Amino acid sequence: MSPNTSNSRPASADATPANAAEDPVARIAALFERTRARSRTLAAPLAPEDMMIQSMEDASPPNWHLAHTTWFFEEFILKPHVPDYETPDARFAFLFNSYYVQAGPRHARNKRGLVSRPGTEAVMAYRAHVDEAIGALMSSRRNDLEEIAWLVELGCHHEMQHQELLVTDLLHGFSYNPLLPVYSPPEPMPVAAEQPLAYAAHEGGLVEIGHEGDAFAYDCEGPRHKVYVAPYEIAERPVSNRDWIAFIEAGGYSDQTLWLMEGWAVRQREGWDAPLYWWQQEGEWWCYTLRGPQPVHLDAPVVHVSYYEAEAYARWAGARLPTEQEWELAARDHPIEGNFLESGALRPLPGGGFWGDVWEWTSSPFTPYPGFRPPEGALGEYNGKFMINQMVLRGGSCATPRAQMRESYRTFFYPHQRWQMLGLRLARDA
Amino acid sequence: MSPNTSNSRPASADATPANAAEDPVARIAALFERTRARSRTLAAPLAPEDMMIQSMEDASPPNWHLAHTTWFFEEFILKPHVPDYETPDARFAFLFNSYYVQAGPRHARNKRGLVSRPGTEAVMAYRAHVDEAIGALMSSRRNDLEEIAWLVELGCHHEMQHQELLVTDLLHGFSYNPLLPVYSPPEPMPVAAEQPLAYAAHEGGLVEIGHEGDAFAYDCEGPRHKVYVAPYEIAERPVSNRDWIAFIEAGGYSDQTLWLMEGWAVRQREGWDAPLYWWQQEGEWWCYTLRGPQPVHLDAPVVHVSYYEAEAYARWAGARLPTEQEWELAARDHPIEGNFLESGALRPLPGGGFWGDVWEWTSSPFTPYPGFRPPEGALGEYNGKFMINQMVLRGGSCATPRAQMRESYRTFFYPHQRWQMLGLRLARDA
Amino acid sequence: MSPNTSNSRPASADATPANAAEDPVARIAALFERTRARSRTLAAPLAPEDMMIQSMEDASPPNWHLAHTTWFFEEFILKPHVPDYETPDARFAFLFNSYYVQAGPRHARNKRGLVSRPGTEAVMAYRAHVDEAIGALMSSRRNDLEEIAWLVELGCHHEMQHQELLVTDLLHGFSYNPLLPVYSPPEPMPVAAEQPLAYAAHEGGLVEIGHEGDAFAYDCEGPRHKVYVAPYEIAERPVSNRDWIAFIEAGGYSDQTLWLMEGWAVRQREGWDAPLYWWQQEGEWWCYTLRGPQPVHLDAPVVHVSYYEAEAYARWAGARLPTEQEWELAARDHPIEGNFLESGALRPLPGGGFWGDVWEWTSSPFTPYPGFRPPEGALGEYNGKFMINQMVLRGGSCATPRAQMRESYRTFFYPHQRWQMLGLRLARDA
Amino acid sequence: MSPNTSNSRPASADATPANAAEDPVARIAALFERTRARSRTLAAPLAPEDMMIQSMEDASPPNWHLAHTTWFFEEFILKPHVPDYETPDARFAFLFNSYYVQAGPRHARNKRGLVSRPGTEAVMAYRAHVDEAIGALMSSRRNDLEEIAWLVELGCHHEMQHQELLVTDLLHGFSYNPLLPVYSPPEPMPVAAEQPLAYAAHEGGLVEIGHEGDAFAYDCEGPRHKVYVAPYEIAERPVSNRDWIAFIEAGGYSDQTLWLMEGWAVRQREGWDAPLYWWQQEGEWWCYTLRGPQPVHLDAPVVHVSYYEAEAYARWAGARLPTEQEWELAARDHPIEGNFLESGALRPLPGGGFWGDVWEWTSSPFTPYPGFRPPEGALGEYNGKFMINQMVLRGGSCATPRAQMRESYRTFFYPHQRWQMLGLRLARDA
Repeated sequence: MSPNTSNSRPASADATPANAAEDPVARIAALFERTRARSRTLAAPLAPEDMMIQSMEDASPPNWHLAHTTWFFEEFILKPHVPDYETPDARFAFLFNSYYVQAGPRHARNKRGLVSRPGTEAVMAYRAHVDEAIGALMSSRRNDLEEIAWLVELGCHHEMQHQELLVTDLLHGFSYNPLLPVYSPPEPMPVAAEQPLAYAAHEGGLVEIGHEGDAFAYDCEGPRHKVYVAPYEIAERPVSNRDWIAFIEAGGYSDQTLWLMEGWAVRQREGWDAPLYWWQQEGEWWCYTLRGPQPVHLDAPVVHVSYYEAEAYARWAGARLPTEQEWELAARDHPIEGNFLESGALRPLPGGGFWGDVWEWTSSPFTPYPGFRPPEGALGEYNGKFMINQMVLRGGSCATPRAQMRESYRTFFYPHQRWQMLGLRLARDA
Repeated sequence: MSPNTSNSRPASADATPANAAEDPVARIAALFERTRARSRTLAAPLAPEDMMIQSMEDASPPNWHLAHTTWFFEEFILKPHVPDYETPDARFAFLFNSYYVQAGPRHARNKRGLVSRPGTEAVMAYRAHVDEAIGALMSSRRNDLEEIAWLVELGCHHEMQHQELLVTDLLHGFSYNPLLPVYSPPEPMPVAAEQPLAYAAHEGGLVEIGHEGDAFAYDCEGPRHKVYVAPYEIAERPVSNRDWIAFIEAGGYSDQTLWLMEGWAVRQREGWDAPLYWWQQEGEWWCYTLRGPQPVHLDAPVVHVSYYEAEAYARWAGARLPTEQEWELAARDHPIEGNFLESGALRPLPGGGFWGDVWEWTSSPFTPYPGFRPPEGALGEYNGKFMINQMVLRGGSCATPRAQMRESYRTFFYPHQRWQMLGLRLARDA
Repeated sequence: MSPNTSNSRPASADATPANAAEDPVARIAALFERTRARSRTLAAPLAPEDMMIQSMEDASPPNWHLAHTTWFFEEFILKPHVPDYETPDARFAFLFNSYYVQAGPRHARNKRGLVSRPGTEAVMAYRAHVDEAIGALMSSRRNDLEEIAWLVELGCHHEMQHQELLVTDLLHGFSYNPLLPVYSPPEPMPVAAEQPLAYAAHEGGLVEIGHEGDAFAYDCEGPRHKVYVAPYEIAERPVSNRDWIAFIEAGGYSDQTLWLMEGWAVRQREGWDAPLYWWQQEGEWWCYTLRGPQPVHLDAPVVHVSYYEAEAYARWAGARLPTEQEWELAARDHPIEGNFLESGALRPLPGGGFWGDVWEWTSSPFTPYPGFRPPEGALGEYNGKFMINQMVLRGGSCATPRAQMRESYRTFFYPHQRWQMLGLRLARDA
Repeated sequence: MSPNTSNSRPASADATPANAAEDPVARIAALFERTRARSRTLAAPLAPEDMMIQSMEDASPPNWHLAHTTWFFEEFILKPHVPDYETPDARFAFLFNSYYVQAGPRHARNKRGLVSRPGTEAVMAYRAHVDEAIGALMSSRRNDLEEIAWLVELGCHHEMQHQELLVTDLLHGFSYNPLLPVYSPPEPMPVAAEQPLAYAAHEGGLVEIGHEGDAFAYDCEGPRHKVYVAPYEIAERPVSNRDWIAFIEAGGYSDQTLWLMEGWAVRQREGWDAPLYWWQQEGEWWCYTLRGPQPVHLDAPVVHVSYYEAEAYARWAGARLPTEQEWELAARDHPIEGNFLESGALRPLPGGGFWGDVWEWTSSPFTPYPGFRPPEGALGEYNGKFMINQMVLRGGSCATPRAQMRESYRTFFYPHQRWQMLGLRLARDA
């Protein structure tokens, strides 16, 4: 997040009506209300038992996501800005701090799934308590909002990130249940024609990259800076399941020469021979989704592939992954047309636009932009301390709230990770 | 379990009134009802979230215990003996088979904590379904009960074992919650005077060891067989917390020469310096129990120590652990007076009798008795396939149903395990 | 070792001629000379590079064996008994102490293969230095030998154990070299007729077990004590390779119901489908030995099988492993006729006698005999601290010096270990 | 390596006299002879036992380095270019291929330390055999050298890389020997005055980066390409031991907020509190080197620090690491003045020039330059398949042959690695 991301410009589907946009308090209050409500909506289909599932250290239980996002508002807004604020339980700070060293000690990350108390009801009461206190604070600061507005906006974007995690962590957790639970009832995939692969040419040049302006962005999206980009070509759609099946059938998972050394070692150790959640059944590929098991839709973007697989695929296809700069330049030419979290799609659909259905691996490691300086204090830990061994993905997926999607957004994962909604797009030298 | 454990003699607190004892059907039906009801009682204080906790592969979630014990009746009684039996969900066999290879494939043991569906309500409905079917079966076999009576009795004893596991697994799982949840409200420990350590002499000789008679016993408790036991002495009470603190203060946890080689390696790796769940607070030892954090009661039996610790303690004390034969001979002279699961103590109390408050490590590895032959089929896997690398414990604890306690009962755990209610008693050569 | 194992009775091939036997000094001196010389002989075919091989933590490099056995004499005899003894390098005590806590700190066991200095030449000089000092000590104590005689004898038996380890560790280490080095040139296996399996009946009874008399034995072989043994039958020869191949062909390695739970887990993890060092080649089984790759001899005893495999085999064969008491009773009726280390066989040969070609797994865990008390001080660590999780083997193998073989000898290994010369014999209830 | 690195320009201390430079055959032959001789020189002080040491999977035994570098010439030059070439042992290809999938199957990397045969003598004979064959090939191609010249040059540079590894692997292996062996006798460190830290300003701009010209370079050093670099400042010397001790004393190793999240986790797990090989002794810092234990020289560059430590140090110092582009631009302004491998220094010395005593971590992940295309075939695996999760270091160290040092050279290691001669230099935004 960035201290200079002030409150003037609505950037997203979370934007409020025009008149609200002119009232910063109303805009922020509406964003807050909408964001908090969406978390409740996401949790609504879940039983208390579902709220406990933690299938690996990388994932967290739904209950924890609901509590942690609440703690974030409490810790970074209420405690410093509301002198007489009283927390429902002082021990929640220990339980629900994720990784902010400067915000104090915290519970072991891989033990979150053992915290049955506070349970769902208590967590929901915690949410309501904090919602009320934030509402009261915003009202009381009506004429002096600026100091806290960006913190509330940051808290909302933070919660949106956790909404996506809640969805993907749940899918991962459910996938270990042999009954393959259904979170949301199945509905038919749209029919879509096969879309041939075409490349758009970009001239590159000495360009500016990174976030600019007053709308919200995370600290790592800036500062905006000059970069030289050589001319390149970039595919006009992500790699599809049909493409991926061709890769499988061509032996892509068994030809070591296509793979990075480490990628191959991971593939061997994990026994990968298809994307996560895929299996073959009577000659057809199926996959598990939050809408239950479904046949793989050939024309939807491929998802749940690691960087290692994406990189091997690109080599096999005689292409490469784009750099994050190439991606950002290209995205500026296209509106967002994917199926956002709000659409309820819950898995990438065919026929989306240029981007927005699936996160796209780039060939860029997650490093600080020139001149990057995280804010002082615990919030400076938000992104900066993760800048090693991770790769940047761009875009956004069917599990991403629309308001999280922007051309400059950089998300990042380890090259072996697959449980997020991760896909890819090809590029090549001009 | 043993095919020859017929239904004639009530052996336990689960025994029914005298007239019932004369009616085998009534006795078994009462045992079944009482056992099944006790599981429900144990689960009553738990929220649905609590039902999901699995803190390690050795432990299982409460929900799973409730379902697995039900599956046991379904698999080994209803399916073979009720031709038109219909299970509520055929997939439960996969989910709730624990380790019976001959009963078919099964879910991964360390993923039980991810099965949120069926949830508590569905599991309770499964229990009711099976209860009804067992009841109907027993009624219909009123005049031909023998064939299934021992199976029902076995199922009940099996469920009693899981009742103990449910309690100890829950304690372990809760202990990872920094809020240290309270399962049952605290109540004061009884006052008890320090009991000096005294030894009783036994002459040993060529004796018979192992289960005898018609009452229920597991297969591994027999056959009864001759053993020569040299004269020995055995302590008249288990080692107490007071004793254990003396060991700690004498440096027992830092003197490698007291320890078995492997025990020391485990101690180092795990950082043991006191029993599991203990900590020091303002100079006093405290421990976590299902009744919440409590000061360690000096005169209660020590609990939650591994074999390695028990063995080192005995060496430090200039004594040794008894063999299981020595223990069994001695126990024949004493009634059971401990605090059983039914008492609600939930942790060992001071002032119990000779045995029954805590399981007692013996120096005997868990091996088959001469002539041991497990039954044919899946039930033969009950005990036999675990006869390696485990040590026998004798007695029973505050988490053991009274009906599980008998002189010939052999439970067994790995020497590094501590999460059960495990303590010790000293012995020495005469 | 045992303080009461005095020096009167020659028990082995290491025995000296009759007249020497009457002179304790001469007997011990001859034993010492012969034992030390045999180590040099074993090392003779090895290049300095071979002396460095350590293929796992359980195994040690030849150089280390040569040095450690020397340190043993230095530490337990020269340092306490030769006031002005000077070690060539005081740091050797740290490098070459194996596990004697009371003898001071020591090097990490799994890093022995990194100690290239002192190299072979320096280790051999160390040996010569100690040999000379021991010789001088024995001469000077000619009339007062008793105090040190049993220590020298213990040191010799200790070195004999390491001679066996040197051989088996080397085989294991060499097996990781794809060139499959030859330690000693191949020579033809003796032709032998198939020997049908026959059982000998034993009446058992209340018998005495354990070492008795003045000849050397380790502490854990005593005290001699009474045991009741039920009547039993025991096979008159070990299980042969022919037998084992029948087990393989009958699917023994894929039928989980034959295996202990842990054994199956190890089998799965390690991918076992035959004894260690075996492979199939054009329909024939081959194995790697220190005499190079050889066809498996059908009538030689099977070797390099774990306890888990042995136990599963016995179950498959409708028999069981003998207890160590059953074994000891039976062995008393038979002379040792196997191929000892001195024979140079280096792998079990067909046509041996009742025992002596292969160590035989028993069903007995390695526990202390009643009344067992290890000696005070570091030497008390020799056996006692290993009495957990290990199983007793009886007999002796083609890699065992003849003088190590006796009816009461108990060696012990973990049930998953296979790199020693480990085989089995069947037994059954009478 | 690069197909376009022809044979015209001597670039290094391995250059031959002027007239040779005009004769490509002579130049390459001289390079080959000098390089091969240097390996023998490096091995000269080693005993056969030393040749076996492999202390971790990342490191290889000296014997293996000597054989692998020889196999490289055999595999990539002799086999394809000498029709009747006969290898001394066809199995060496399996033993001594490192990671070239396209060159066939290969031995397990972590088992190299178990290959005692071929021993040193046989490996030296293998070297002589290949030397002779390469010499003969070069002679026979005197008028048609180009096809193989770059392969020979590549083989020489490859061997130079392994010379550095041999030295650093040996140091690592020796460090596990409590006797701390001395490879080369100690000699006094030069006296040097403290050199205050000064920064040089660079204007950056749109510049060209990467190798250019005909001299040898690896494939990953090109293609030369345009990059925009913002103005920056770079320190005129590497961080010194004096600087590093200040970091230690300021609590740098215990302040988690200075560290990347992963770096801190590694620090905790490994217990790092100083560079590798350091310890404190009577208030003074000492370190282990190939010249034996030595006091840490305050004014020598710090060495044996991981990326994580380097990055934390830079943050603590209010600076940052340079990017590899910043480093390359700066290096163009300075000659190489460090102590090369040929100097025999064997550890960084004080008073060197701008660069050349120590490898310097940059903030740049090892990624392909725009337009990078590795050569076809096995040699394409040389660098390309490692382009993930590693960081670029620039410069060269006291263990680097002079001929390996050039401004465009990119070496790369994982951020947790410390056993190479790794240090750092500070930079900051202008």
